Amino acid sequence: MPSKKILRSGAFADFFCDGVQRGSTITLAGQIGVDQNGNTPRDLKGQVMICYENIKRILTEFGADLDDVIDETWFVTDMQECMTNVIDIFALREEIFGRKPEVSQTLVGVAALVDPKLKVEIKCIAHLGSNSDSERM
Amino acid sequence: MPSKKILRSGAFADFFCDGVQRGSTITLAGQIGVDQNGNTPRDLKGQVMICYENIKRILTEFGADLDDVIDETWFVTDMQECMTNVIDIFALREEIFGRKPEVSQTLVGVAALVDPKLKVEIKCIAHLGSNSDSERM
Amino acid sequence: MPSKKILRSGAFADFFCDGVQRGSTITLAGQIGVDQNGNTPRDLKGQVMICYENIKRILTEFGADLDDVIDETWFVTDMQECMTNVIDIFALREEIFGRKPEVSQTLVGVAALVDPKLKVEIKCIAHLGSNSDSERM
Repeated sequence: MPSKKILRSGAFADFFCDGVQRGSTITLAGQIGVDQNGNTPRDLKGQVMICYENIKRILTEFGADLDDVIDETWFVTDMQECMTNVIDIFALREEIFGRKPEVSQTLVGVAALVDPKLKVEIKCIAHLGSNSDSERM
Repeated sequence: MPSKKILRSGAFADFFCDGVQRGSTITLAGQIGVDQNGNTPRDLKGQVMICYENIKRILTEFGADLDDVIDETWFVTDMQECMTNVIDIFALREEIFGRKPEVSQTLVGVAALVDPKLKVEIKCIAHLGSNSDSERM
Repeated sequence: MPSKKILRSGAFADFFCDGVQRGSTITLAGQIGVDQNGNTPRDLKGQVMICYENIKRILTEFGADLDDVIDETWFVTDMQECMTNVIDIFALREEIFGRKPEVSQTLVGVAALVDPKLKVEIKCIAHLGSNSDSERM
């Protein structure tokens, strides 16, 4: 069985991987709004921006980019704040992707994230495709 | 890299895709109990039925059907109501699938869904299989 | 389309599968801290241990093992208890895997699990890889 390609980095490198690839599938650990210096913006939009910076950094290590993301699950701690700002947040997301994201998405409100400062955690699945795959599509 | 096959429809078409296919994998956005006319039944069972109508509609667009679903995550807002009616709800689900679903399932209680009227959101992963795959099984 | 390989066992065998394989992908139902005799330890660490016993048992039926797990989502009911014991819990996990797990992980706090006694549910995706896949890595 082939070994996996993995990425470990950051404060939790001992606990889990930021990303794992086996075959064409890349799974990413849920990303949070903590930047490389350990800072967390107070507002949801700022946190979303950092989540995607982290996601992009991880994907790059696998030779992938945002266009390879097929699925996102957003876990938010304040659904009302999220829905109040949904237009703004999705405009930001479209800007980050450079176009309307070709991604299936699920958005649920959770009771807690790993740190009370956090308002969102974004979990992604990416898929690199392959020639044999594309013939079927 | 091959492009994805995507489906956009409904009220949130600008924000995310209902379904995305790359290779043999199809990921679906979490489906909710809002029908094509924007109506939401009050009871959980009625919402589950609409979730599956939406799921079937999306799968059809990818040339797939419920038998291609391999995994479901159910996010419910009232676990007690869900467990009280679990026999009924799973009987309905078996009826919808036409047999005991060949699906791994996870059921968790969330703090909120995108609309307070919603009692359940169902997130599916489907897989189309392939000849080379089946030889290994 | 090739049929799936599935595993049904335990108290909920009529409702869903413990695991489903199609192609190289194996999805597992969220596993909980209930052992084969129906017992549930009170503490989170004890429940985590049983979750992994269940996960290993299911993977074995598919000719897979913990090294084939690529992604985990942990749903916990008490994030504070989880974070207070995080060093202990991840040490246990490393012991179970026999090394630092090569797994992307997401940890969120939920409002409820299927039984009030439960403190954690662990949902896994495994991937068997393939020769053609490994060439790309």
